[in-house]
Amino acid sequence: MANHRSVEINADLVKERSKCSFDLEELTNLIDGGKKKTKQRRQMEDYALNSGASIDPVPEECLSIQERYENAVRKSCVYSALVRESLVNITGLEDLGLSSPVLQRTSDAFFKEISPFLLHFGMFVPTIIGQCTPEQQAKWLPLAMDLQIIGTYAQTELGHGTFIRGLETTATYDPSTEEFVLSTPKLSSYKWWAGGLGKTASHCIVLAQLYTKGECHGPHAFIVQIRDKETHMPLPGIKVGEIGPKLGFNTADNGYLGFDNFRIPRDNLMMKNAQVTKDGTYVKVARHGKLTYGTMVFVRVMLVSDMAYYLAKAVTIAVRYSAVRRQSQPKPDQPEAQVLDYLTQQHKLFICISSSHAMRLTSTWLWKTFTAVLADMREGNTDTLPELHALSSCLKALSTSDTAALIEQCRFACGGHGYMYSSNLPALYSFAAATRTYEGDYTVLLLQTARFLVKSWEQMEEGKPLTPTLAYLIQSRDGNQAKWDDSPEGIIRAFHAIAAGRITSCVNSIRKHVRNGMDYEDAWQLTTVQLVGAAEAHCRAVICRVYRDETIKMTAECSPGVKTVLDQLSMLYLLYWSLEKTGDLLRFSSLSEKDIVSLQERYEALLLKIRPNAVSLVDAFDFRDEVLSSTLGSYDGRVYERLMEEALKTPLNKEPVNQSFHKYMKPMLQGKL
Amino acid sequence: MANHRSVEINADLVKERSKCSFDLEELTNLIDGGKKKTKQRRQMEDYALNSGASIDPVPEECLSIQERYENAVRKSCVYSALVRESLVNITGLEDLGLSSPVLQRTSDAFFKEISPFLLHFGMFVPTIIGQCTPEQQAKWLPLAMDLQIIGTYAQTELGHGTFIRGLETTATYDPSTEEFVLSTPKLSSYKWWAGGLGKTASHCIVLAQLYTKGECHGPHAFIVQIRDKETHMPLPGIKVGEIGPKLGFNTADNGYLGFDNFRIPRDNLMMKNAQVTKDGTYVKVARHGKLTYGTMVFVRVMLVSDMAYYLAKAVTIAVRYSAVRRQSQPKPDQPEAQVLDYLTQQHKLFICISSSHAMRLTSTWLWKTFTAVLADMREGNTDTLPELHALSSCLKALSTSDTAALIEQCRFACGGHGYMYSSNLPALYSFAAATRTYEGDYTVLLLQTARFLVKSWEQMEEGKPLTPTLAYLIQSRDGNQAKWDDSPEGIIRAFHAIAAGRITSCVNSIRKHVRNGMDYEDAWQLTTVQLVGAAEAHCRAVICRVYRDETIKMTAECSPGVKTVLDQLSMLYLLYWSLEKTGDLLRFSSLSEKDIVSLQERYEALLLKIRPNAVSLVDAFDFRDEVLSSTLGSYDGRVYERLMEEALKTPLNKEPVNQSFHKYMKPMLQGKL
Repeated sequence: MANHRSVEINADLVKERSKCSFDLEELTNLIDGGKKKTKQRRQMEDYALNSGASIDPVPEECLSIQERYENAVRKSCVYSALVRESLVNITGLEDLGLSSPVLQRTSDAFFKEISPFLLHFGMFVPTIIGQCTPEQQAKWLPLAMDLQIIGTYAQTELGHGTFIRGLETTATYDPSTEEFVLSTPKLSSYKWWAGGLGKTASHCIVLAQLYTKGECHGPHAFIVQIRDKETHMPLPGIKVGEIGPKLGFNTADNGYLGFDNFRIPRDNLMMKNAQVTKDGTYVKVARHGKLTYGTMVFVRVMLVSDMAYYLAKAVTIAVRYSAVRRQSQPKPDQPEAQVLDYLTQQHKLFICISSSHAMRLTSTWLWKTFTAVLADMREGNTDTLPELHALSSCLKALSTSDTAALIEQCRFACGGHGYMYSSNLPALYSFAAATRTYEGDYTVLLLQTARFLVKSWEQMEEGKPLTPTLAYLIQSRDGNQAKWDDSPEGIIRAFHAIAAGRITSCVNSIRKHVRNGMDYEDAWQLTTVQLVGAAEAHCRAVICRVYRDETIKMTAECSPGVKTVLDQLSMLYLLYWSLEKTGDLLRFSSLSEKDIVSLQERYEALLLKIRPNAVSLVDAFDFRDEVLSSTLGSYDGRVYERLMEEALKTPLNKEPVNQSFHKYMKPMLQGKL
Repeated sequence: MANHRSVEINADLVKERSKCSFDLEELTNLIDGGKKKTKQRRQMEDYALNSGASIDPVPEECLSIQERYENAVRKSCVYSALVRESLVNITGLEDLGLSSPVLQRTSDAFFKEISPFLLHFGMFVPTIIGQCTPEQQAKWLPLAMDLQIIGTYAQTELGHGTFIRGLETTATYDPSTEEFVLSTPKLSSYKWWAGGLGKTASHCIVLAQLYTKGECHGPHAFIVQIRDKETHMPLPGIKVGEIGPKLGFNTADNGYLGFDNFRIPRDNLMMKNAQVTKDGTYVKVARHGKLTYGTMVFVRVMLVSDMAYYLAKAVTIAVRYSAVRRQSQPKPDQPEAQVLDYLTQQHKLFICISSSHAMRLTSTWLWKTFTAVLADMREGNTDTLPELHALSSCLKALSTSDTAALIEQCRFACGGHGYMYSSNLPALYSFAAATRTYEGDYTVLLLQTARFLVKSWEQMEEGKPLTPTLAYLIQSRDGNQAKWDDSPEGIIRAFHAIAAGRITSCVNSIRKHVRNGMDYEDAWQLTTVQLVGAAEAHCRAVICRVYRDETIKMTAECSPGVKTVLDQLSMLYLLYWSLEKTGDLLRFSSLSEKDIVSLQERYEALLLKIRPNAVSLVDAFDFRDEVLSSTLGSYDGRVYERLMEEALKTPLNKEPVNQSFHKYMKPMLQGKL
């Protein structure tokens, strides 16, 4: 832990760390993806953070929205200059994906909330890579990577988010000038939400309905310059501004954008998948619909990995605080207990450690699946895409939903102090809660997965082969309950049985409605509450299996200490979710009342086994204090000192009496109001 | 709906309202507690809100923390002057409790977040009423009610919240001057959190360990003047300031407070329950420990009622927005559907309408129980107090936890726009999430209830009689599953069986540990995860029963239209929770797989029955637009217009180019950084 340089460490934390039964550095290396990567990451952190440029003298949340934005732009420019070099060689999504975890940590230390430039690297660049022709890439990519332009990505409109086909912004081709004319005909057609759009971006990728020769070809992506290079003034025909305060991300200058017949050159249409020739002929290049999935799936894979990272931060804060915080005397003659010693606290927190590992490993596995599918697609084979799409949909949905709930669980576990902004838990929650909605709403994504599940079920019925992640469906054909067996493999089998059973129930429910004379789509709608449940069950089964399998693979060469704790964590995940899902297990497996009691006992015993390593397990995530940015979670455990130090920074404490006393309160107290 | 004066109403909302099958005003009257109360409330709203004094030209969230505070003080003074008259006659907790729902609505329209004066009426005044002698009340109450002083309540310290006995602030009696000397010996002893303490309050009730004649008598409440009447400067020996930004309540100036041997007169000890005579003799007046429960239980009853109110607001916003918002085409030849037509949306929202009614009725019922117990106590009988305490603990825990989760469900149901501050959903969530922690943490309160449950179980075993809310425990004696029966009464019986079964499991688990040689307290600790579950189950059963019973009582004289919808809502609650708890029902009742399918079908059918009345059901909560303060939820449904109008108010939109472009971005774009 070379980067923790605190002089005095809280005595309870010292004691906790002395109990560690495994090689901490070995686990950190595993989490980073190798010794070399840990080293790279720490070098990057030293390089970017040791200058102190990331530190705010006044907490960001105290400033006005304008000051916050200006401070974020200032830091974005400093930060970009720092990291520009490490970005210039990136040419593909793979490079971008691999460099992102390293950058994320340093970026987090700079921006407690978010950089207005985030969508530049997060969406603008990946879309150029994914949807431009080589010639277009050659034009735009160097400009973007060298930060000569700052871009963002505008798809969502005031009136449409989920339903892309319903987008109202139009791009109508005018062959006389070889331009597209962009227009937002109604208020509801205004673009809304794009980060960095409000004040920052010079360019914007815009999704609009492509019209040419009087025909609509659906939504296509266009590159649009929106502000003047010299003055930064919105160009004539562009109506752009900030959308106002939000739950989180308040330094992102999310924006709105309207077009008053704004003209762009023909070749600003991103033409990898579809082109419009000079005379206005629309030419589809290969499987347009499917190829654009690429960026979308890429972003979702990244999100699952982000969730693992956010949750690791939250649980690091909560576990360290719980080791320092002492409250109540379980027995009269003993000192107050560390709250980490309460079983209810362990119940709230240890599943968060497990879940972070589960999501990280699932994300890596999904990444491997994704790159394999990309390779297939380059050879013209898109057969594996539907399964990947269904997987990335449900994993995005469940990982963001789990993470939001678990971060809030960490926050609640820190009592009142978790409500302080300086704990950093409120901000972490606001980020995770946003991801549950953006890039595909929870319910909508699960229903998309459910379509795939029901279709697969029907194919199975017709005797067709099942894709790998759905091979378990075959179980549902005999209609019996799965035999309960409490080994890890047995539990995973039972989760597969739950998923199979729930999908079968949905099919039965849809068919019952159809038999009663309803058309299929209405019957589907009436079953959607159950379908969401079925997709959740499928996804949970996938995570359980992948987490277990990948843990075994990853630890094959590990020291016994690390192997043991990672085995415990993956086992905890299986037991936790078994106890959460006793209703489903009772329905779809032979689980008995006695088995439930035994599960509960094993779970409680496992919490106690993990307890001595709890602090070391979160230490292994290896967050520098600057990255964690939490009064409650710092490595040294100086919780109360830091809370007070942070409080003293608020401008309200700069003067003993606020002017509002003389202006408003005194007249009132004296009865003069 | 006399107060909604919008000219143009969204066509979908007009259509929704035309489908209403019940008398709207009749339901509003029921919710208010009578025709007269509705009238009073509307008069108060007209009086306080029609002046426009509550309106902010710039959204509060855009301002710096200092500006926000100053604006809140300004409005607090205006508001207090407006409502002062309606408060002067209040002398008891009952009066205060009854006037609070009326004041809450107008206060909410003034303070999007919170008034720095909130704890003055919310804690300072109730504590004076509850813990002062008549002489002390005669001194302090008129000063407080007439707003000549502004008080707050400081109990929590940096190092202690839950465990009151562990508080470190001391009040040591000095007979030579007849004063108490207040001291905060360590950093962790500093008071922390009290709303209004940071900059606003002139006085503060302080909980401190009372020492006299060398002996500690535990925590007692003292009234302490902390600031100079003329200058508002902290008095010598007082260290006071603001604690910094939080998830919500950012205009509350929550404060810290330290004492440097600060002296207060002897009779600033609140002496209703304990006194210290001039020579320093400690005199306990009657059952000290139990009588101070009064204020605490009062505050919890109020919180349950607040939760009903917050949730009603959130679901009003979400339901109206869902009627206006159209998204996706379920069928190609039809227009985009109102999102309220999706079953998944109904599933998310209608339970919120139900739950708000459930909590309101439970709170009223708890209030009746509370006043009966108060009457008993005045006659010296405290036998009914433990049950009330257990009830108020678990109802506070479950109602705040349900409300936080359901408000967030409403927010998620509004997609991206729910993340906008102007929807008001983020603020509502931040309030509800705070209540889950303050005035008793969720887990701690449920474990207190669990103590009562296990004790009662043991008494039952000894053949002693059970208290009314626990009469169901008798079922657990025979050890059989309850016969499942899907009538409302049958479902409630099954919920009682779940609670009885879970409490029995806990007792078995504790005894097993004890048989294995563990001492009782350790065995209890090891069972706490299960005990929390048992207390939840008990509380859910109480709410199910009370909601159903009180609905039947309340609607006895109602028109058939109102009776039908309220019956549907209470039935929805029972079906929703049955489906959530199938695992428990399978364990503790004879519920079968077939019964689950039938429950699911009934639940889905009921959603469709409620659907046509959904907008009218939230209209009946009768929130004025100023009170709701939501771009998505206003009565007229001008959702997109209001979002844009609100966005245009942010100071970032006042100038087309922010200065940070020239200062920071341009050099970077030109490669000069």
